[in-house]
Amino acid sequence: MSQFIPQDRAMSQNQLLTLLSDFGLSDVYVGVMKGEIALINPHLTVIDLTHEIPPQSIAAARFCLMSAYTSFPKGSVHVAVVDPGVGSKRRSLAIEFTQGFLVGPDNGIFSGVLSQCPAITAVELTNPKYWKSPQPSRTFHGRDIFAPVGAHLASGVPIAQLGKQVDIKALVQLTMPDVTSTNTTITGCVQYIDRFGNLVTNIPGTTVQNKTWNVLVKGLTIPGCNTYSDVAPGNAITLIGSHGYIEIAVANGNAQKLLQLTWGVIVQVEV
Amino acid sequence: MSQFIPQDRAMSQNQLLTLLSDFGLSDVYVGVMKGEIALINPHLTVIDLTHEIPPQSIAAARFCLMSAYTSFPKGSVHVAVVDPGVGSKRRSLAIEFTQGFLVGPDNGIFSGVLSQCPAITAVELTNPKYWKSPQPSRTFHGRDIFAPVGAHLASGVPIAQLGKQVDIKALVQLTMPDVTSTNTTITGCVQYIDRFGNLVTNIPGTTVQNKTWNVLVKGLTIPGCNTYSDVAPGNAITLIGSHGYIEIAVANGNAQKLLQLTWGVIVQVEV
Amino acid sequence: MSQFIPQDRAMSQNQLLTLLSDFGLSDVYVGVMKGEIALINPHLTVIDLTHEIPPQSIAAARFCLMSAYTSFPKGSVHVAVVDPGVGSKRRSLAIEFTQGFLVGPDNGIFSGVLSQCPAITAVELTNPKYWKSPQPSRTFHGRDIFAPVGAHLASGVPIAQLGKQVDIKALVQLTMPDVTSTNTTITGCVQYIDRFGNLVTNIPGTTVQNKTWNVLVKGLTIPGCNTYSDVAPGNAITLIGSHGYIEIAVANGNAQKLLQLTWGVIVQVEV
Repeated sequence: MSQFIPQDRAMSQNQLLTLLSDFGLSDVYVGVMKGEIALINPHLTVIDLTHEIPPQSIAAARFCLMSAYTSFPKGSVHVAVVDPGVGSKRRSLAIEFTQGFLVGPDNGIFSGVLSQCPAITAVELTNPKYWKSPQPSRTFHGRDIFAPVGAHLASGVPIAQLGKQVDIKALVQLTMPDVTSTNTTITGCVQYIDRFGNLVTNIPGTTVQNKTWNVLVKGLTIPGCNTYSDVAPGNAITLIGSHGYIEIAVANGNAQKLLQLTWGVIVQVEV
Repeated sequence: MSQFIPQDRAMSQNQLLTLLSDFGLSDVYVGVMKGEIALINPHLTVIDLTHEIPPQSIAAARFCLMSAYTSFPKGSVHVAVVDPGVGSKRRSLAIEFTQGFLVGPDNGIFSGVLSQCPAITAVELTNPKYWKSPQPSRTFHGRDIFAPVGAHLASGVPIAQLGKQVDIKALVQLTMPDVTSTNTTITGCVQYIDRFGNLVTNIPGTTVQNKTWNVLVKGLTIPGCNTYSDVAPGNAITLIGSHGYIEIAVANGNAQKLLQLTWGVIVQVEV
Repeated sequence: MSQFIPQDRAMSQNQLLTLLSDFGLSDVYVGVMKGEIALINPHLTVIDLTHEIPPQSIAAARFCLMSAYTSFPKGSVHVAVVDPGVGSKRRSLAIEFTQGFLVGPDNGIFSGVLSQCPAITAVELTNPKYWKSPQPSRTFHGRDIFAPVGAHLASGVPIAQLGKQVDIKALVQLTMPDVTSTNTTITGCVQYIDRFGNLVTNIPGTTVQNKTWNVLVKGLTIPGCNTYSDVAPGNAITLIGSHGYIEIAVANGNAQKLLQLTWGVIVQVEV
């Protein structure tokens, strides 16, 4: 592979590649992707974002990528494989954007990141020279295409060599309900629920900064606070979460279970 | 430890070691094995295959190792610890085979890999010089013997130094029901179920290549397809999976739950 | 950042940092902490102890740290984030002890390690120069303070630069029920339950070494053994576990489920 890897970049630096998928950790799928990466360049640093995306949930993957990419060095390669359309005619992509590179299926998984940080160029992965083999399986493009392509990109292969250029305006979008606002209310929805049961809305925290505010959801009114310890354990609060959005939480508890709320539920903020 | 590590190999290369176990990730057992490896050689690259093997399931571990080893560089060391006989008289092994090295208990865990790629030499781990200490615990040989031995092997210690040679024909085998065939049917069984609920049989995909075929299982007839998207979401299909075997799946769903099938169930392919 | 990283230490050595939390692996919180570490020093080796501590269980985290730290090279940095008081006035700490460094909240999480291996010096993390930014979020100090501080420490920043020194005798303690003994009995409790359902007491194994002994718990008498295979599968035994404490286990089974015991239950050893 030495022809693909400029000596000055790949071998001297510890170039970084992240992995996100819905493969879980109970099978060897993730370990196998890391093996394929090591076959191409054993000097890469590989970091797992998460592999516990709910199966086939492009929306959860979209949110997780959007929450994570700003914490990585510029130039990092993010490989994301939540891919219910694997084996169909959906396109495989590599995208260069202002903070690095994205590799995965063209199904909207990257549309959150790209709404914040625009794409520079995108290619469809049509060059089998950078795949595991010219005949990929029908069901595991993570191993056969995306991990190898990510490893080559992180090792210095120019994106243009990976396939034919595609129109960045024609990439598949995953649309979220818009956030709408009047003078006194902002309306959005729950876009993510984390393992603590915290309900992350799509309403930016900046909309309530330095204001007094409440959240209305399913007939409940929940006071805006600064931190979990502003209320007694077991009480519901709402605050600006670490993702930068308004979150509904329960101090030392699980808001999803206590309030019986779920993905997509409509949330109103009163300011 | 410098006497064990030829300078030219261990310190200049990023030698690779994989870990597989049924330890799960909720305790510190896996982290502790990685610490013991770092104590011996902090320059090794360690990749987790999986630690979520169902407790004590040698059959699942055997399948996972067989699915993974071909994705790793030649010479990699695979440490596998699913070890219900820990502390008993079962032997501890290091095996050199044509693709690298295997380290773990002599209970059949490696018999799938070795059925594909024969052993060259095998030793019983009788030399405590390469263990964590001469008095290992009775219950955690992953930390006390297997991880240290794997780290020494990956650092260049010759396998013959690890203990006394044993007969490779006398290693414990884990037998799977044979695949049998007539002119029109091939009979096998479900040998693995992954986190998506895909049922992986032990019938090689090569038996149906370029043919029209169906799978018969528990009174159901399931059509052979190329990819998940050949049927509408929620429908059962069977295809050649990424492991190379015939798999039963449900498009955008869980075949194990929908079809109520389990490990070992008999499967017939009609061609 | 080059001013923080003495060339001779950080760039030539593979300095080691461990992470422990209750963040789980289903969100991107852990991946994001690793990104922040890579932003500071991509050459550090990062090892996960576990991220599946039961949410907010300082007791479980305390036990896990105590079980793990001896398996890591001297000088390793252990970052531990189980932090129900995040955003409140609880202090953030870096501690130097005889085996390395500890970074996390002042809530007793380190009191097990420090009961075995005393603190040398401790500082409150008051210097924002070593944080992600001078305005940390209210809810995710793992990303904003603890991971960056750990990365700087592992890269050679002197602990005294991280904040103001605090009295090591005034650190928050997490008290465990004492182990008491008479001539013939030792009384303790279950301090940890692992994923196999093994019940780890707080009674040191040294109290029964080379003796005949039984465990009394909830009306049951369980014989002291050497190893799982001393009894038939499905039978309860008690032995000196790999953590160094007396454990109650079931051969090829789950003691927690079979015996219906839980955290904190009183255990008596008869010698």
